[in-house]
Amino acid sequence: MSDSAIKNLAPGELGRVVIIGYGLIGSSLARVILRDNLASELVCVDGSAEVRAKAMELKIAHRATDDLATEAAIADLIIIATPIGAVRQIAEVLGKVVRPATVITDVCSVKVAVADALRQFLPHHRRTVPAHPIAGTEFSGPEAGFAEVFNNRWCILTPEAEVEDSALNQIKSLWQHCGSNLAEMSSEHHDRVLAITSHLPHLIAYTIVGTVTDLGTELQSEIIKYSASGFRDFTRIAASDPVMWRDVFLNNREPVLEMVMRLQEDLAIMQRAIRTGDGKTLQEHFSRTRAIRRSIIAANQA
Amino acid sequence: MSDSAIKNLAPGELGRVVIIGYGLIGSSLARVILRDNLASELVCVDGSAEVRAKAMELKIAHRATDDLATEAAIADLIIIATPIGAVRQIAEVLGKVVRPATVITDVCSVKVAVADALRQFLPHHRRTVPAHPIAGTEFSGPEAGFAEVFNNRWCILTPEAEVEDSALNQIKSLWQHCGSNLAEMSSEHHDRVLAITSHLPHLIAYTIVGTVTDLGTELQSEIIKYSASGFRDFTRIAASDPVMWRDVFLNNREPVLEMVMRLQEDLAIMQRAIRTGDGKTLQEHFSRTRAIRRSIIAANQA
Repeated sequence: MSDSAIKNLAPGELGRVVIIGYGLIGSSLARVILRDNLASELVCVDGSAEVRAKAMELKIAHRATDDLATEAAIADLIIIATPIGAVRQIAEVLGKVVRPATVITDVCSVKVAVADALRQFLPHHRRTVPAHPIAGTEFSGPEAGFAEVFNNRWCILTPEAEVEDSALNQIKSLWQHCGSNLAEMSSEHHDRVLAITSHLPHLIAYTIVGTVTDLGTELQSEIIKYSASGFRDFTRIAASDPVMWRDVFLNNREPVLEMVMRLQEDLAIMQRAIRTGDGKTLQEHFSRTRAIRRSIIAANQA
Repeated sequence: MSDSAIKNLAPGELGRVVIIGYGLIGSSLARVILRDNLASELVCVDGSAEVRAKAMELKIAHRATDDLATEAAIADLIIIATPIGAVRQIAEVLGKVVRPATVITDVCSVKVAVADALRQFLPHHRRTVPAHPIAGTEFSGPEAGFAEVFNNRWCILTPEAEVEDSALNQIKSLWQHCGSNLAEMSSEHHDRVLAITSHLPHLIAYTIVGTVTDLGTELQSEIIKYSASGFRDFTRIAASDPVMWRDVFLNNREPVLEMVMRLQEDLAIMQRAIRTGDGKTLQEHFSRTRAIRRSIIAANQA
């Protein structure tokens, strides 16, 4: 869905914006909002003094503070851009101070756990619009952000049925403004699809890079030297933010474990085929996987 | 090792060259040899009439034939660029017709099995120089080749102790001419290092892409749509040539199976950490893997 009916944002339209967590995604959104003058005020809320100082130095916030309660009470739009593990505590604070008119959104990679936390502490809030921009790099922190990171990437919204249209439309406008393509689905479906396309691949990349790292220093210089032969492709995503990914796996446990189980079954089949010299099974399998690459190229996602 | 003592090749110096197998690598070598006029004659030997026609159409061979015995008997340099599974049969033909002065080389991704086959059928030949250029793309066939593919990539030579210096130096000159960086090691060590850096990553990529492909058509369009979130990185190497990779796994069985076993142990540890909610183990593991990416970037292999 790329809805041409979604209206463009006017200067200052987002009002007083609070971004909680100035990592790669939070700071990229901040850059878009300041570049295009979308907020009357943009406040960085981050627990790290270092990150707050960096945000001010980079001029990607009007103010920076760790006082979430005070800022949340007067905000028009609150964007949660922390690792998922911090969301419950944030929701608890928001539940005490947020006005009914304030729009709340987030950018987390897991949606059921985030929706549960927000629902628990803000049970009557009708202006909560969870979102997940499928964007990023293997780098992290406020220096790693850039306004173009969302351009032509998908952003998945997982609103509940009872959300107010004006809040939903504002968040749609914001992401469209960032250059994203919009999609909508349930949080449960999101978590299942992302377990396949993102969480399992990251887990496998982290695992294989760890296996190789454990081989000792004698082989390691050669492994690095010859990494272009395949290994390199795994190291990029295995360099992603450790805390963010720890929280993804802890918060999307069942869909990820189901995919790990399926992968292990398939790996056992490959292992047996190699052990028994069953070339037919290997070749058939390797031929099938070629087709899906072509589909990705055809969908302009390569 | 990038040996400045290795001399440059003069025009025509390689004499009559036969390349067996005009796939991505064979046809790329052909392009270099013709571009720089390194051979007095360049002959394409390929079992496929379609490939032979394509080689002539692309003007990347002076002649094309499937008569290996006749060409091998009069060749000065024979380059085996087929999947490994074809090498034994080729070695058998070469053993009957090749003159002692002819240099034999190959480009296969597994070295012990190839050395065994050549030793069996050419036990007294002292001008055999196995090589493995760490280069390629996920595409295959004569159209997929290009002369620059070897530029700044490693080429590993695995010569036996008794090889004649003049043959070894000629093959070194050829690869240096292609722009490759040269390395030398035993075939056993090569197969162990490549099992780690190349064969295991390919097997895992093939497996995970297969697992995802099996999820049925309903989810598949979404998997393709959101593949940029991690899955995409695996599909590129899982699109590599199926026959070539079948032969790699059948011919480097023990080193690959050892790595698969280690990976499975590590995957079980990750799986348990997710299941039990052990965030400490996950975060520690994910932090370690970040470091190796930095080493690869530092080594200019990213």
